[in-house]
Amino acid sequence: MSRFLSTKYKKLVAYTPGEQPKDMQYIKLNTNESPFPPSEKAQKCAEDAAKRLMLYSDPECRELHKKLAEHFNVEPCQVLATNGSDEVLNFAFMAFCDDKTPAAFPDITYGFYPVFADLNNVPYQTIPLKEDFTIDIKDYFNLGKTIFIANPNAPTGIALNREQIKEILRNNPDNIVVIDEAYVDFGAESCVSLVNEFDNLLVTQTFSKSRSMAGARLGFGVASREVISDLNTIKYSTNPYNVNSMTMAAGIGSLCDEDYTKANCKKIAENREWLTFKLKALGFETLPSLSNFVFAKNDKISGKELYLKLKQKGILVRHFEKERISPFVRITIGSKDQLEALVKTIAEILEELK
Amino acid sequence: MSRFLSTKYKKLVAYTPGEQPKDMQYIKLNTNESPFPPSEKAQKCAEDAAKRLMLYSDPECRELHKKLAEHFNVEPCQVLATNGSDEVLNFAFMAFCDDKTPAAFPDITYGFYPVFADLNNVPYQTIPLKEDFTIDIKDYFNLGKTIFIANPNAPTGIALNREQIKEILRNNPDNIVVIDEAYVDFGAESCVSLVNEFDNLLVTQTFSKSRSMAGARLGFGVASREVISDLNTIKYSTNPYNVNSMTMAAGIGSLCDEDYTKANCKKIAENREWLTFKLKALGFETLPSLSNFVFAKNDKISGKELYLKLKQKGILVRHFEKERISPFVRITIGSKDQLEALVKTIAEILEELK
Repeated sequence: MSRFLSTKYKKLVAYTPGEQPKDMQYIKLNTNESPFPPSEKAQKCAEDAAKRLMLYSDPECRELHKKLAEHFNVEPCQVLATNGSDEVLNFAFMAFCDDKTPAAFPDITYGFYPVFADLNNVPYQTIPLKEDFTIDIKDYFNLGKTIFIANPNAPTGIALNREQIKEILRNNPDNIVVIDEAYVDFGAESCVSLVNEFDNLLVTQTFSKSRSMAGARLGFGVASREVISDLNTIKYSTNPYNVNSMTMAAGIGSLCDEDYTKANCKKIAENREWLTFKLKALGFETLPSLSNFVFAKNDKISGKELYLKLKQKGILVRHFEKERISPFVRITIGSKDQLEALVKTIAEILEELK
Repeated sequence: MSRFLSTKYKKLVAYTPGEQPKDMQYIKLNTNESPFPPSEKAQKCAEDAAKRLMLYSDPECRELHKKLAEHFNVEPCQVLATNGSDEVLNFAFMAFCDDKTPAAFPDITYGFYPVFADLNNVPYQTIPLKEDFTIDIKDYFNLGKTIFIANPNAPTGIALNREQIKEILRNNPDNIVVIDEAYVDFGAESCVSLVNEFDNLLVTQTFSKSRSMAGARLGFGVASREVISDLNTIKYSTNPYNVNSMTMAAGIGSLCDEDYTKANCKKIAENREWLTFKLKALGFETLPSLSNFVFAKNDKISGKELYLKLKQKGILVRHFEKERISPFVRITIGSKDQLEALVKTIAEILEELK
């Protein structure tokens, strides 16, 4: 810390991204990346854009917004592309939360929400998940707060259905409800179709997971024209050229290759069911995931020990120290080969414990 | 505006980027882009990175920071890459300004500084440039404020020399001085070599202009380890993966192709001198620019009229409504062909006035 840092940030605890060690070649099942390469159309579009980098990217993201709007059957003015979905989430904390309207989110969810709240000096309430790690929607009725719900939730993978989200929206008519659908494409129900019915709904999604574009940094929000206009005020006061032209082009390319994305999501869902079955056979308890990861624990070994032993053997999964979830590890659904290696290695680790 | 927007942003006036009209093919001399394509090495690196987009970009930007550190003869921990230099500038407003430490910058400078200040609820003082549009460095001594100076300044193109910046640094020992060197590569003196001498110095630069990478969005800050550490706290609380992997790769590629960048900067400087000569012959007054643009006025035509007439004839330059500078237009130094077309068109416009 320098002697110049503003007092308002002196106690700020930043977010910790999943580790990216470079000491050896790992099987990476720790940051929910896709095992599949990006669409060839996306790659080709990015390559073409690389030739024209001397020109600024379109600050209005016209082509991409048009394509996203077509995809979701909304108007282009109801869409905002951002530098990863973290950016649109931060914009939402900035625009729709303050002293008078604090934030509210589950006690166990995406670890960035409390960081965004602290960064923006926004008070927040964490609402405990039930014993089985599901959300009780009644806990979110008429809170007078801006609500953030990851759906499916992370790191549990458990999703609410659209009817449950509607209940939350109906019971918060005067507050924004942000539904963070980073993992929605792997089997859960999206709420994007509700944005014209509920003016208090903001849905965020990302190209990082289902579209194999984590390295491109492309997220977006979908909402009413007015809510998107507010987010644009923040964007144009922060970084008008927030999405670079290669990423914008790759995003358009990906949206022109829906069959590829759908086929990959299907494979991930199949691999998830296969891994869940195998883990159960090895004595694990798994939460019912609709995402591209599985949250699993085994009474024979702590989450931390399993994480460390897997890392020693060249496989990265993610472990969280937080009390309620420390017995678990979060395993990204990789390719079948990767998961077979994982299952074999876990079996060996359990065998060594005997 | 939605009914949900926080009162703190209800009066926020966002930055207006230079226009990017798509109604016809313009000669674009309005947003200080380079007329030259990005380095082929940069393009090749970006293409390779596009194949691996399913993996997150390195949040620590290790390779790029190493390369930048070598380039500037500092340690990697003294460098922070960002999503364009707007991002590092915003981080500086966040980290080093508050109620107790307001911001200070010239009355005529990069139009984003007051927006960043307003966004972050930071009070600010604007200090008038002298009659000849130069900075009187004594105006910046011991202000007790965080100082932002674009050097060369925009839209004037006029630069302070390194010794003058040193005087400002010496006379603000307890405040950060941000030197925004977006345009430094076209002839001005960089202050990066001073970061180990002055712990209150933060230098920001961009790949947008001299490196022909405006569309890639890559900026960076160089400073003491501690100042960079503060900026990292903000980065990891905002968007840890702020630089995408294609841009990161392109940046590394560009830094491996210094001869190309230097040759382009030399051509721009030559074209600038040529354009200045031609404009003077047409009765223009130009400010002494060390950047990739020229700020010019002609008593025979208002800045606005010249801008509008040029636009009608398919050439975009930038005009600012602000009082002191409204007689001027800012002309980006394009290719020789573009500038020849510009000079010919201006001569026609002046002829039509007779």
